[in-house]
Amino acid sequence: MESSSSAPQVITCKGAVAWGAGEALVMEEVEVSPPQPLEIRIKVVSTSICCSDLAAWKHHTIFPRIFGHEASGVVESVGQGVTEFKEGDHVLTVFIGECMSCKMCKSGKSTICQVLGLEKKGLMHSDQKTRFMVKGKPVYHYCAVSSFSEYTVVHSGCAVKISPHVPLEKVCLLSCGVAAGLGAAWNVADISKGSTVVIFGLGTVGLSVVQGAKLRGASRIIGVDNNPRKCENAKAFGITEVVDPNSCKEPIAQVIKGITDGGADFCFECVGDSDMLTNALESCCDGWGVTVALGVPRVKPKISAHYSLFLRGRTLKGSIFGGWKPKSDLPSLVEKYMNKEIQIDDYITHNLPFDEINKAFNLMAEGKCLRCVIHMPR
Amino acid sequence: MESSSSAPQVITCKGAVAWGAGEALVMEEVEVSPPQPLEIRIKVVSTSICCSDLAAWKHHTIFPRIFGHEASGVVESVGQGVTEFKEGDHVLTVFIGECMSCKMCKSGKSTICQVLGLEKKGLMHSDQKTRFMVKGKPVYHYCAVSSFSEYTVVHSGCAVKISPHVPLEKVCLLSCGVAAGLGAAWNVADISKGSTVVIFGLGTVGLSVVQGAKLRGASRIIGVDNNPRKCENAKAFGITEVVDPNSCKEPIAQVIKGITDGGADFCFECVGDSDMLTNALESCCDGWGVTVALGVPRVKPKISAHYSLFLRGRTLKGSIFGGWKPKSDLPSLVEKYMNKEIQIDDYITHNLPFDEINKAFNLMAEGKCLRCVIHMPR
Ligand SMILES: NC(=O)c1ccc[n+]([C@@H]2O[C@H](COP(=O)([O-])OP(=O)(O)OC[C@H]3O[C@@H](n4cnc5c(N)ncnc54)[C@H](O)[C@@H]3O)[C@@H](O)[C@H]2O)c1
Ligand SMILES: NC(=O)c1ccc[n+]([C@@H]2O[C@H](COP(=O)([O-])OP(=O)(O)OC[C@H]3O[C@@H](n4cnc5c(N)ncnc54)[C@H](O)[C@@H]3O)[C@@H](O)[C@H]2O)c1
Ligand SMILES: [Zn+2]
Ligand SMILES: [Zn+2]
Ligand SMILES: [Zn+2]
Ligand SMILES: [Zn+2]
Repeated sequence: MESSSSAPQVITCKGAVAWGAGEALVMEEVEVSPPQPLEIRIKVVSTSICCSDLAAWKHHTIFPRIFGHEASGVVESVGQGVTEFKEGDHVLTVFIGECMSCKMCKSGKSTICQVLGLEKKGLMHSDQKTRFMVKGKPVYHYCAVSSFSEYTVVHSGCAVKISPHVPLEKVCLLSCGVAAGLGAAWNVADISKGSTVVIFGLGTVGLSVVQGAKLRGASRIIGVDNNPRKCENAKAFGITEVVDPNSCKEPIAQVIKGITDGGADFCFECVGDSDMLTNALESCCDGWGVTVALGVPRVKPKISAHYSLFLRGRTLKGSIFGGWKPKSDLPSLVEKYMNKEIQIDDYITHNLPFDEINKAFNLMAEGKCLRCVIHMPR
Repeated sequence: MESSSSAPQVITCKGAVAWGAGEALVMEEVEVSPPQPLEIRIKVVSTSICCSDLAAWKHHTIFPRIFGHEASGVVESVGQGVTEFKEGDHVLTVFIGECMSCKMCKSGKSTICQVLGLEKKGLMHSDQKTRFMVKGKPVYHYCAVSSFSEYTVVHSGCAVKISPHVPLEKVCLLSCGVAAGLGAAWNVADISKGSTVVIFGLGTVGLSVVQGAKLRGASRIIGVDNNPRKCENAKAFGITEVVDPNSCKEPIAQVIKGITDGGADFCFECVGDSDMLTNALESCCDGWGVTVALGVPRVKPKISAHYSLFLRGRTLKGSIFGGWKPKSDLPSLVEKYMNKEIQIDDYITHNLPFDEINKAFNLMAEGKCLRCVIHMPR
């Protein structure tokens, strides 16, 4: 088969490459391959920095790499067999795709696609290769998205088409953090009216659970964070009380049990610390308390908990991406935003041009921002 | 206030006293106090031995003690203020009572009564004292039931009235083991038709989950037990496949995932081993797998599990007494037995007179029985 003149070519553009764990990103000339069968190449418009990017950058061992997984953009070209997208379509990327044909996708009950699930080796799902080259060397992907580049290639199952009227520089937050939190509150915990809810970690993920809880009519929404700035800031999102564990004399679970007559109805771990998850479980009430794990604890990945917490009626669940099925559910979340039924804008505390992405990483690392949106050059 | 001549007096009767951890029970003359306010004194008719009795006898430190918590009997006398029971009523004991007025009882959602919950100090709920004396020394209770005695005193919230037509020597199993298993399958996991279910531990509790799963129309019911006798025996209860971990080359979770296309819908831990609970969690499928903890792991009470098991959509729950509300739910379970909608008789592999209770303990310890029912002298 001859390549026609209109077949997509390699694009050379700017990408923020991490050469080693925790090292400042370097703006490089990146060669981005054409999309392979069933893939699409996206011109990234906006991408925000999620705590997961930061944690992977600090703790993973796969380098050089282009991070970024919370993004919006415009389809630049499509690979063979792609019928769902065409050049110019506006899209959100998703770090867990939907193949629509595996046991999980077909079940209608799960978002953990067996084909396009969480990618951990830094390679594309289809051929276990990369689509990025810098100075003749392959550069690894992150979560099969890699949006810290002007152009990126993703599987067509890892993107969702959205209306061209939607502000891409806002809704990129629905590509991970805000959707993860709302979904945990609605799909996973299914918070009921009048509930008492405790959120551990008041970053964007935690504050999105807060929004979800508030919209469900929770009567008490208690936030726990050891950063006084985050505690202060959380009030605008619907938190009714905040607790800073550093200013408590008793263990945090004791404090929470004390102020909630024996424990909360729902607890959410949005820090990324397995000991905090144990605290969350212990802060739930006997009988029907539900704890939802959202955080990704890199340092100590094993959760430990006394068996009696479960025998006494607690439930521990968790979710990636809030239990949403990306293709079917994300468009309706975007619509809710457009109808002002959910808000996103207040999570964006900073905006920076792509050139200043390291500044954004520092803001996040220092706990000084919620989401910082990176704007790509037009 | 003068004590009237009809007021209940101390009863002296035979009781099987454990003087130390793991020591053979000794048949002693026990003085059983009259029931205090809101308590009832029961003439025990039948009591079976549950693995929890055995584990507490081996591992607890509170002695001398009278064990036994799976029992049926007849009310001998009632304490002040008791209106629910009168002399001659047939009852089942329950090790988690229902006060009907605490937050948990009133919620209608829980069985973990805050007033009559699991008693761990060997004392009566109401006054933190014992009702047993041997040779002038107080003897501790177990689970606020202590049915290894011809007479025992329980709080009126820890007994349930049943029809006098019900065979007491059978339904004592509904006082703990069989009810715990059925309830875990129905109330806690809510097994749906066509599900794949794995039960770890094929004692009475595990086989009652099996019965519950079968009645719900589970299509595959896989049993795991390291005792070949238990594996063989389990087939009559509705198990469709058995796996003995000792005869597997791979870790048990790998084996289960292999034969269930990625994992089961429901797993139940009915061994009482925290590592087995981790195995159970790992044997569930991503997306919607539910693991229910029933076993009581005395040796290593902390459960450890990788966080990603939860983020990928698994749920861990647990239950004491199968989530049944004793007062409201036990009579209907008894009725189901009378209507032959559930079976109990096959769990009773042995019957022994009270005198031979140590033989029953040995049968249980050696894995040679399901339930051995102890029959009290008439
Ligand atoms: N499950 C998912 O789908 C999903 C999606 C996005 C992010 N995540 C994970 O969720 C977690 C939160 O993400 P984020 O983007 O909101 O991060 P973030 O860094 O903005 O928020 C984390 C918050 O936790 C607080 N915190 C840290 N240590 C604490 C402690 N010891 N006690 C109390 N508070 C503490 C911080 O002050 C901060 O406010 C991360 O682990 C991230 O990887 C999960
Ligand atoms: N949650 C509740 O309400 C409740 C009620 C009753 C009993 N229990 C607990 O449930 C557990 C089971 O009770 P039971 O009365 O059925 O006990 P049991 O001793 O009759 O059954 C336990 C089974 O586990 C098997 N087993 C032991 N070690 C094993 C291993 N390493 N691998 C595989 N199988 C193994 C044994 O062979 C046995 O068949 C106990 O821990 C008991 O304390 C809980
Ligand atoms: Zn993220
Ligand atoms: Zn799929
Ligand atoms: Zn028991
Ligand atoms: Zn109560």
